[in-house]
Amino acid sequence: MNARSAPRRVVALSGGVGGARFAYGLSRALEPGALTVIVNTGDDFTHWGLPICPDLDTVMYTLAELSDDERGWGLKDETFHALEGVRRYGGEAWFMLGDRDLATHLQRAQALAAGDSLTQVTDTLCRALGVPARVLPMADEPCRTMIDTERDGTLPFQQWFVGRRAEPKVQKVWLDGDPPASAAVVQALAGADLVIIGPSNPYVSIDPILSRPGVRDALRGPVVVAVSPIVGGRAVKGPLAEMIPALGGEPASAAAIARHYGSLLAGIVVEHGDEPPIRGVSVLACDSIMKNREDRVRLARDCLAFADGLLARRANS
Amino acid sequence: MNARSAPRRVVALSGGVGGARFAYGLSRALEPGALTVIVNTGDDFTHWGLPICPDLDTVMYTLAELSDDERGWGLKDETFHALEGVRRYGGEAWFMLGDRDLATHLQRAQALAAGDSLTQVTDTLCRALGVPARVLPMADEPCRTMIDTERDGTLPFQQWFVGRRAEPKVQKVWLDGDPPASAAVVQALAGADLVIIGPSNPYVSIDPILSRPGVRDALRGPVVVAVSPIVGGRAVKGPLAEMIPALGGEPASAAAIARHYGSLLAGIVVEHGDEPPIRGVSVLACDSIMKNREDRVRLARDCLAFADGLLARRANS
Repeated sequence: MNARSAPRRVVALSGGVGGARFAYGLSRALEPGALTVIVNTGDDFTHWGLPICPDLDTVMYTLAELSDDERGWGLKDETFHALEGVRRYGGEAWFMLGDRDLATHLQRAQALAAGDSLTQVTDTLCRALGVPARVLPMADEPCRTMIDTERDGTLPFQQWFVGRRAEPKVQKVWLDGDPPASAAVVQALAGADLVIIGPSNPYVSIDPILSRPGVRDALRGPVVVAVSPIVGGRAVKGPLAEMIPALGGEPASAAAIARHYGSLLAGIVVEHGDEPPIRGVSVLACDSIMKNREDRVRLARDCLAFADGLLARRANS
Repeated sequence: MNARSAPRRVVALSGGVGGARFAYGLSRALEPGALTVIVNTGDDFTHWGLPICPDLDTVMYTLAELSDDERGWGLKDETFHALEGVRRYGGEAWFMLGDRDLATHLQRAQALAAGDSLTQVTDTLCRALGVPARVLPMADEPCRTMIDTERDGTLPFQQWFVGRRAEPKVQKVWLDGDPPASAAVVQALAGADLVIIGPSNPYVSIDPILSRPGVRDALRGPVVVAVSPIVGGRAVKGPLAEMIPALGGEPASAAAIARHYGSLLAGIVVEHGDEPPIRGVSVLACDSIMKNREDRVRLARDCLAFADGLLARRANS
């Protein structure tokens, strides 16, 4: 790796926690201005009359070092007094909205109502929080990730994931709505040297981004690398390990992730021992579990060095 | 006073703190089910995209013993973490919305958006909080109390009262909008034996109620008594003492209050020494300042006994 071959324009694709932590690492490993994070909005929903964007907020809070890393969601030093009040009134109390977090949803609601796009609102919020990267919602218009379950029929994602703790077995994941990628997303992808798919759930976090009209075309230019969210056959977080057999027809593994993304990938980053035996995809095996902030930056640096090799190879071919 | 002459159906008219504290006293002095409180909604406004009803909430919280009596507004054990967040985002931070308080505004916003009337929403909220009285907004449709000032032109009430600390001198108070009294308000007034105007500001709290179409007619039946918000020439709370010379053309006094309400009143309750020398209005002089909850109940009992006398006199005439 040398200075000239270092990718200057990097885009990360992200869902919630795993992707956000990896994006944090990238934001610290790259020069200021180099990173754009494109975030899934299929999980977005309306709660207490406010538009909630769980993945966008997780990315924003994580990048700003405001997230509660132990709890795994929301803001640190959070309180839940509004929620207590709503519960007392008999309102909806199944989704944990904190008091500090509410400021985000209230500000977003007002800005959207005033006519700002979700892309503009997100930019304004990120600047106020000092987020050291550009964060883009995948689309400005809403779409909703829906989960067909064996037991409980079709549920909106948050109702399944939070409301029922991801317990009802998944038969199918689909999007209600098909908005195009925002212009900012298409530009960021088309102008990128490198796109890294973070260690997020392919079905509910990454596929919604990849399936936005305009995205596949924009991905023809950059080198695309994925970080496997499956380590030793298990998901680092969330219900992914159970979803792969049901939706992908094979056991959960880094190889299943590589096969899922198929020809899109130039390379995949996996845990030591998880190397998938797949032709045509370069593999980096490394320590991929992020237990702390140092791990995130180290993993990001490993991925960038790996990607530099792929970029150099492409430049020489 | 005997059991038969005791008024069974009592309506209190109220603005914020003073009226709410007096209504608390009435709610504890009267039998359950006897009290209806009709509350000014001219101070209502939209903030953070949510409908805020300061007087309704003060009455509701005070009657439920949830109000912060020391601070004089809002809920006890309140936190302001959402407000901190909004301030960080550069949002509107001049009005102190607490986290627990937010639950009320969020629930109200959703219920109104779902098509409930403000009367219905208020009833639902009051039941959840265990408010031991019926609380009615003066009208279901909005109107806005506007303040014409010498220095800063015309300001909506909260912008003048909270945003500018009631400092710009008042030239005129007027209502933007003229919605009729709700059906529930008209029924409560027409069916009441006794209507007590609480120690609230006549111009910004009580006149908006009295001027709702339908109210004056409904007030022909019951005996009407007012509790003076002016004690020894000063307002117990708020900017009233400065408003009376500007708007009423005379020094602040209990007599000015009696003259303001005019022929509507059968009686007025004032502090010892404040007895107004006005013909045709019965006067009760008593300890009218409410320093604690016991004072509120004592003042309410004094007022009810005084009103019993007026009711008995009317029955015998």
